[in-house]
Amino acid sequence: MKRSLIKVVFVLLVMVFASPQLFGQKAHTSAEEAIRMADQQWLKVFAAGDLEKSVEFCTADGSILAPNQPIATGREAIKQSFSAFFSIPGFKISWQPLRTQVAKSGELGVTSGAYQMTFNDPAGKLVTDRGKYVTVWKKQADGSWKVFLDIFNSDLPPA
Amino acid sequence: MKRSLIKVVFVLLVMVFASPQLFGQKAHTSAEEAIRMADQQWLKVFAAGDLEKSVEFCTADGSILAPNQPIATGREAIKQSFSAFFSIPGFKISWQPLRTQVAKSGELGVTSGAYQMTFNDPAGKLVTDRGKYVTVWKKQADGSWKVFLDIFNSDLPPA
Repeated sequence: MKRSLIKVVFVLLVMVFASPQLFGQKAHTSAEEAIRMADQQWLKVFAAGDLEKSVEFCTADGSILAPNQPIATGREAIKQSFSAFFSIPGFKISWQPLRTQVAKSGELGVTSGAYQMTFNDPAGKLVTDRGKYVTVWKKQADGSWKVFLDIFNSDLPPA
Repeated sequence: MKRSLIKVVFVLLVMVFASPQLFGQKAHTSAEEAIRMADQQWLKVFAAGDLEKSVEFCTADGSILAPNQPIATGREAIKQSFSAFFSIPGFKISWQPLRTQVAKSGELGVTSGAYQMTFNDPAGKLVTDRGKYVTVWKKQADGSWKVFLDIFNSDLPPA
């Protein structure tokens, strides 16, 4: 009887000490899942050329750091930057996060991966580009993730 | 005497409730300062062309996402990437963080800013480039900050 009690106490102690790590791990995993999902939800509206929704994914003080143009900070500047992309004839884009990182505190995170882009040049010829990106996300008061910084560049040699 | 005691208790209560925020703010500010300092210490060794120290600034699983080349992950690949930069004739670089962000948990942070680069093209002509970057930092067990992801691109139109 006494040995059973010791066993029960031991199991309870293990549960008490193990649970914060278990819960921590679970919270961490779901945060990584959430940020990965946000990354792909942003792609969905961006690939559809939905200007309003694409801009709404950015924080009010967010910045887009696109190649061959200055930093676009704030929703109005970001809108202009995205608008220029969406007006490129035959513009198609896709991206996939390869690495995700969320701070233990859960309000700051990063996705990084590969993009593929096709469009038609002024002569109508199909141009294919592929490259990589880093997106820094901030968790909002409503629990959603928004883009604080987004930067990308091509893997291909200069044209 | 009783009023003095009430005052003392009031002051003590204010100190107790205010201190976590004060310390929190201080910790946050010093974390931002630390990451900004790491950003500029990395510049120092990079601008000096110190290959070993430049690579040591990256985590073992860190990635450099330089334009016009694939992602370089891990110290050996990063070494090759940096080595290529350092071998460009007349290569000079500088950068300054414009924005810094550190997670409340203090182990993940971001610096983002502007870079200026000059080098000589194959004909010996001076080429000037300016652009922007995002560096994702991870705090190490020893308290130092190391580069987990670094990505940059040019502000200038394609050559």
